[in-house]
Order: sequence, then structure tokens, then C-alpha cells
Amino acid sequence: MSKTETSDLEHLPEVLLTQKPKLFALYGEDSFTSNKFRYLKAYESSLPLHQFLTTRAHSVQAILSSVNAPVTVDILRHLPNVRLVVTTSAGLDQIDLPECRRRGIKVTNSGTVYSADVTDLAVGLLIDVLRNISASNRRAKQGLWSTNGDYDYPLGSKLRGKRVGIVGLGKIGSEVAKRLEGFGGDVSYNSRKQKPRVPYPFYEGVLELAADSDALIVCCGLTDQTYHLLNKEVLSALGKEGVVVNKEMLRCLMEGEIAGAGLDVFENEPDIPRELFKLDNVVLSPHRAAFTSESLKDMSELVVGNLEAFFTKRPLLSEFLSLTNIRFLHL
Amino acid sequence: MSKTETSDLEHLPEVLLTQKPKLFALYGEDSFTSNKFRYLKAYESSLPLHQFLTTRAHSVQAILSSVNAPVTVDILRHLPNVRLVVTTSAGLDQIDLPECRRRGIKVTNSGTVYSADVTDLAVGLLIDVLRNISASNRRAKQGLWSTNGDYDYPLGSKLRGKRVGIVGLGKIGSEVAKRLEGFGGDVSYNSRKQKPRVPYPFYEGVLELAADSDALIVCCGLTDQTYHLLNKEVLSALGKEGVVVNKEMLRCLMEGEIAGAGLDVFENEPDIPRELFKLDNVVLSPHRAAFTSESLKDMSELVVGNLEAFFTKRPLLSEFLSLTNIRFLHL
Repeated sequence: MSKTETSDLEHLPEVLLTQKPKLFALYGEDSFTSNKFRYLKAYESSLPLHQFLTTRAHSVQAILSSVNAPVTVDILRHLPNVRLVVTTSAGLDQIDLPECRRRGIKVTNSGTVYSADVTDLAVGLLIDVLRNISASNRRAKQGLWSTNGDYDYPLGSKLRGKRVGIVGLGKIGSEVAKRLEGFGGDVSYNSRKQKPRVPYPFYEGVLELAADSDALIVCCGLTDQTYHLLNKEVLSALGKEGVVVNKEMLRCLMEGEIAGAGLDVFENEPDIPRELFKLDNVVLSPHRAAFTSESLKDMSELVVGNLEAFFTKRPLLSEFLSLTNIRFLHL
Repeated sequence: MSKTETSDLEHLPEVLLTQKPKLFALYGEDSFTSNKFRYLKAYESSLPLHQFLTTRAHSVQAILSSVNAPVTVDILRHLPNVRLVVTTSAGLDQIDLPECRRRGIKVTNSGTVYSADVTDLAVGLLIDVLRNISASNRRAKQGLWSTNGDYDYPLGSKLRGKRVGIVGLGKIGSEVAKRLEGFGGDVSYNSRKQKPRVPYPFYEGVLELAADSDALIVCCGLTDQTYHLLNKEVLSALGKEGVVVNKEMLRCLMEGEIAGAGLDVFENEPDIPRELFKLDNVVLSPHRAAFTSESLKDMSELVVGNLEAFFTKRPLLSEFLSLTNIRFLHL
């Protein structure tokens, strides 16, 4: 890089990164660069974060956050000129939203970039568990079809006519329901409130929904309220024939309590309970529901687009929180 | 069994079985029994089939056929009183239909019993291959997520917006198309003739369809015309990013020629090419697309229902061929 270019770069506004975003590694950091801003990588400095922030306090105008890079009041206190937090995550649990609001900081999230892929994986996991696809594939690839014959393969279950309970009928839950209709699944749902103009039967409680369902698909965000939502009672209500497709949390109480599970998100990932490794009726996905080549391309464009919009004073592309829509905080 | 019961049984009309149907083993022979008829099991006799048939020539009024139990002119020649062939298969390749017609023998097949499950598996295999579900499950269960981290898992591809070419737009193909619409797949199709009132673009040739598709789903029946339909040219036209979900035949020319395949039916099953065993981008299903507990229950009821209807002179439930609808022969 020539001296001129370096000095040009140094005039670009700075976007703080406290942790390397996973998406940089998954999709390539180049896709997240721009000639309108540059990243200030606290994680490449040998200084402790607070000390690093003190030295750069006034130059930072925006923060790129991700699930593992929280935006706390402690961080914000060092950065009086920050007016934007962009995050690559769908959820905003790692961001202190009240503090952002108090400081007039706008927040953007992943918008609807991940919705289609998360939905597809949820339905794919349901079909996989019901029809034993991964297990059959494993057996066939071990050569068991030709050595043991047909009868070594357990029969799957039909999706058509299955009563599928959806927990959380937001964007993802609604899209799951739409796809299941194409398969002749019989959809019901639970959510905080009954939704107007939704044709599916509503259940006030997850327990009641589970009791009336052959399969549960958990599509709600992970919050204090939904943490360990699928407790022993819910799983027992679902019963021995029931299947869980769990997008947001793990319950490993499945020794015979339910028929199967497709799981994408785990409590202490990537360390997952080894007891699951031997279960053919459990399909494990390494928290990849949201990620395809296409969704990561869209996400990199959304991140760069939001940051460029901010620095060129154009409207943000996926604003979640601003001074004018604080009602979101109380949803 | 008491003597009376045995002698009662012996008065029941006889349904010939030349081979033990796979469904008896998969779902239990009891489900296929009735007090209106009894099975005459040629496969339990030590006599050669022709000799066995000669001894029972006049008592047999119906035959229960399956894929591995053909109904040939040789067999029919021994059985002048047969007026019905019931088969557990969707296809009728194993039955000499012109000879049945000449002899006034009605034929029933599986009707629509298998359609939903075959369709679901086709879509499930497509999602599985696009999103690496089986491969991710295998890796996660080998503990590779916690030891190697996230980046050992290849990114999948988005289904939404994918151009999916359906080869054969019959009952199964149409149902696949309907489900794919829920996922935002972009459907085109090839069939013998363009279908009226179908909104999807029609391609006269499979090669042209493949060239314009990101994924192909083969839903046509296996005939002399469709045997090895997915030849080298078609797979090359599909290209390196293309995915095949193949319900009716196997092509193993996939060393880098196409991105992946989900396969349910194989040329010399259960002996399948060992080269496939190591490929993470290939998902193998042991010819189970049609079989769930529910579809086998429905099938046993259809078999028994057709045979009981015949012996009690009521209308057949899933008649494929009779003297009055011979047009089917030339479709």
C-alpha cells in the first residue's frame, strides 16, 4: 500500500470491532469492506479493551456488533461520538438497547436476510427427522443396505396430516407455517398474543399446544421468558410419538420421552452433549440455519449498506431502533 | 386353529402370491388378511411355479402382484379364472397389461397412496443436499464441531430463488412443484406434452431444462424412454452448481460434474456403488420414498379393500385398467 493510500484510509471514519465477526471468517472480510469507512479492530490490539477505547475515544462513530461482540454501557461510555450500532445478528440481546436509546444511537439488525434460510432448515430438519433421511443416509453409506437388507431401516412417519405446533409466529414462524401448508401439515401456534388474521388455531400455553401436537417447531427468539421453554412437562405432553424441531435452544431430556429432534442451536455450542451423538432420531445442525452463501452475501451487503448510508447521511436499510420508534423496546 | 376354522378358511376364494410381497415384511402380513379371501402362497411350495399353478389352476380368481412378482402371459395361461390383478406398486411394468385386457382381467395399483410421501422425500432430499443437513449431522456427531470449530462445515445454498426443473409433471411432479412454491423455488418442467393450465415454463427437452436449472428433480416413471435419462450431456448442462434429486434412476457420473445428489432408487439395489459412500454431497435413501407407517397402513387397506370389493362384487377402489378404459394403455 502506498503512503498516499494509507493516509487516505486514515481519513476514513472508523467503525469499531471489539471481536472478529464470525461472518468475516465464514464469508471473507473483503466482502465487508468499503471505501466509505474503515474498521478499527480492537481485537488486534494488545491493549485491554478499555484502554484501547480510551485512546480512540473520539474517532469512533459506529460499532459493528455480532452475537459475541456485546455493546454494553461500559463500552458506550468511552465512545461519546457513536451514533450507530450495526449488528450481523437477528437478535439484539447483546446490545444494551435502553442505553443506545438514551444516547440517541440508532441500531440496525439483520432484517429479513436470514428468514428464508432459517425457515427452510426448520422444515428440512422436520422432514429429515420424520423420514429418517440422515439416519438412512448413514446406514446406506456404511453398506448396511446390501448386507442387512431392507428391514434394518426403520419406517418413517408421514408429514401430511401431522399436527404441527409452532411456538412463536413471527416472521420465521409464519414462513414455516406457509411451507407446511404445502405439505398438508395441520398447523397450530402459540405466541405471546393471538395474531389477528391468522387462520391457525391459537394456544395460550406451550404445554397445551404440545399436548395437541405431533411435532413442535420452536421459532421464538431466545429470551429469559423462552429459556428452557421446552421443559419436561412440555416434552411429556408432546409424547412418545412427538418430534421437536428446535431452532433456539436445547433440551436433552429425550431418552425415550419424544420420538426425535432436529436441533440447530445449543446451550454451550460448539460443545454439545455427547449423548446426542449416538441417537439416530436426532439430527444435529451446527447453528447454521441462517447461513448459506446467498444469505451471507446479502448480509455483507446489508452491513456495508447500513454503514455507508450512515456515513453519507442516507436512510438506514434495516433500522431496528431509533428515537422515533422506541415502542419496539416494549414489544 | 381348530378343524372347523381350517375348513372355513379352505372355502374362501384364493388370491395367488408368487413372491412374498416386501410390504408383508415391512408392515406385517396380518394387515393384509381378510375373512373374505385367503392367500395361496406359491413361494412356500417346493414345486416349481408352473407345476404349482397347474395343480391349483381353477381355484385362483385373483393375483396379488408386487414389483418383484410379475404377472406374465405364462402365468396367466395357467389361470383361466383370474379376473383381477391387485398390485402394491405404483408402476405396472411387471404386469402384462395387454394380456390382462385380452382376458378381461381388471388391474388395480397403488392409486395415490404413495404420492404425498414420495413428494415429501423428494423435497426433503433437495433441502438436505442444498443445506448439507446429513453431512453436518454426521460431522457434529463425530464431535468435529467442538474440535475443529465452525469453519469445517461447508456453507449450504439457498433454496429460495433456485431454478428447479421438474422432469415429469404427473401427480408427484405437480405435488413437488406445489411444495416448492412455498419455498420460493422457481419451477420449470419437462414432460411428454405441455400440460394445459399449468403456470410453469415448459421445456420440450430434458437437456434444455437442465441448462436453465440449478436443480433437477426427476419425477417420471422408469420406462425404456426414461432409462438413463440423466445422461452425461444432461448432467453437464446442469453444471457444477447443479443438484439432482433423483427418484427413479441412478447416474454416478458425479465426480465434480454436478454439486450434489439425493438418490432414492438405484439400478442394482440394494447393491449401490461404493464410490457414493464417501461423498458428503450425496444423500442416499434406501428406496423408501413411498414408505411410512401411515402409507403402508393405507396400502394394506387398499389391497384388502380391492380384493374384498372384487369378491363381494362391489366397485374396485383403485382400478387402473378395465375393458372400458383401455385408453390408458396408450397414454
